[in-house]
Amino acid sequence: MSKKINLVMFSGDYDKAMAALIIANAAREMDIEVSMFFAFWGLFLVRDPEKMTLEDKTNYEKMFCMMTPKGAEDLPLSKMNFAGFGKEMLLEMIEDNKAPRLIDFLNGARKKGVKFSCCKLSLEIMGLKESELIPEMEVSDAKHYINDAIESNMQLFI
Amino acid sequence: MSKKINLVMFSGDYDKAMAALIIANAAREMDIEVSMFFAFWGLFLVRDPEKMTLEDKTNYEKMFCMMTPKGAEDLPLSKMNFAGFGKEMLLEMIEDNKAPRLIDFLNGARKKGVKFSCCKLSLEIMGLKESELIPEMEVSDAKHYINDAIESNMQLFI
Amino acid sequence: MSKKINLVMFSGDYDKAMAALIIANAAREMDIEVSMFFAFWGLFLVRDPEKMTLEDKTNYEKMFCMMTPKGAEDLPLSKMNFAGFGKEMLLEMIEDNKAPRLIDFLNGARKKGVKFSCCKLSLEIMGLKESELIPEMEVSDAKHYINDAIESNMQLFI
Repeated sequence: MSKKINLVMFSGDYDKAMAALIIANAAREMDIEVSMFFAFWGLFLVRDPEKMTLEDKTNYEKMFCMMTPKGAEDLPLSKMNFAGFGKEMLLEMIEDNKAPRLIDFLNGARKKGVKFSCCKLSLEIMGLKESELIPEMEVSDAKHYINDAIESNMQLFI
Repeated sequence: MSKKINLVMFSGDYDKAMAALIIANAAREMDIEVSMFFAFWGLFLVRDPEKMTLEDKTNYEKMFCMMTPKGAEDLPLSKMNFAGFGKEMLLEMIEDNKAPRLIDFLNGARKKGVKFSCCKLSLEIMGLKESELIPEMEVSDAKHYINDAIESNMQLFI
Repeated sequence: MSKKINLVMFSGDYDKAMAALIIANAAREMDIEVSMFFAFWGLFLVRDPEKMTLEDKTNYEKMFCMMTPKGAEDLPLSKMNFAGFGKEMLLEMIEDNKAPRLIDFLNGARKKGVKFSCCKLSLEIMGLKESELIPEMEVSDAKHYINDAIESNMQLFI
């Protein structure tokens, strides 16, 4: 029976998302099943910048939508972001090392069959719609997450 | 034999505490045992705002007590707190969705039999006393935590 | 067969590193195997302040090297750092309680046989060299990490 890894993507940080997606991609190459469960700020990683909408949103939801990151490449660093300067510096250093960007790791995970699901309650609180996320996303809840995570061989909260 | 989940509550963020307590409540409804181990900033989540005391504290401990959050509802957001404005906005969005507040999830976890324990060393360093925390709290240490966590089916550091 | 704990050290925060190293030291005293895998900001915890070099580094790497923490005791707090004031306060409170400092926990972990490995890609992106880290460090990658973590009895992302 194949092994399983379950990752909660809570933080919406560029660097933490990169760590998670490097693990997810590497695990899939090792034929390990990977589930990523997105909650709160983690949802911004899987937001499709092309599909943003303000329809049927309250004023707070509209404001929140405008103020928050528009997808993977728009996420800030967890540290030393310095209003984007620190992130630019890190991106240069990634490029100098010919390492892929976050969006490449996200697309890799989508192609390699990582399972994406998200927390319905988080989606509602953050004022996002399912249609604004990547198409692989399945809307789920805490109990489905627990069922999946507890049967996995390792679980991380990122 | 029933399954077990172990959560380390390290961060004292409103949103991370909410994620943890949503998992804890859902797991208890699924008859899964849940242990939450509080350390460092996580202790402020289980501080009872009515039981604050400055007695027998050093000057640093008194100052720290005054500067730090007074219980669950007083915790800041991990991101976009904006001196409380971001948090107010998120609380409005929670209310608009008729979702419970953090304190409701905490009280739910207490009623549903989640086991609460905390790190003695953290308590001492943070200058808090056992009597300032919720009554369900048991003072413990790293070895007890490890024994409990390693026998659990999943462990998260939040 | 002895039990195993695997910790990812992602964050470069003084307080989170302390939590991780308290767990690592306690686990070793209980004869549990401990692996710590360092990535991104976590690398600064295991940087040797005596071995810093600017040789063979790009301008960005040099700048990054100068701006980032020079080893364990130089790490900031994850919260309330207040440009170092909050950290000083916490250090005083640690001393008042006769608790060890972070560097003592790190040296304890080294003596007790905790296994240290780090992410090659992170090392390259952050512009650090193996020779700048503690001598116990083994340079590794995501697949080695996954192999080790998935065979462990518990895994945390810190």
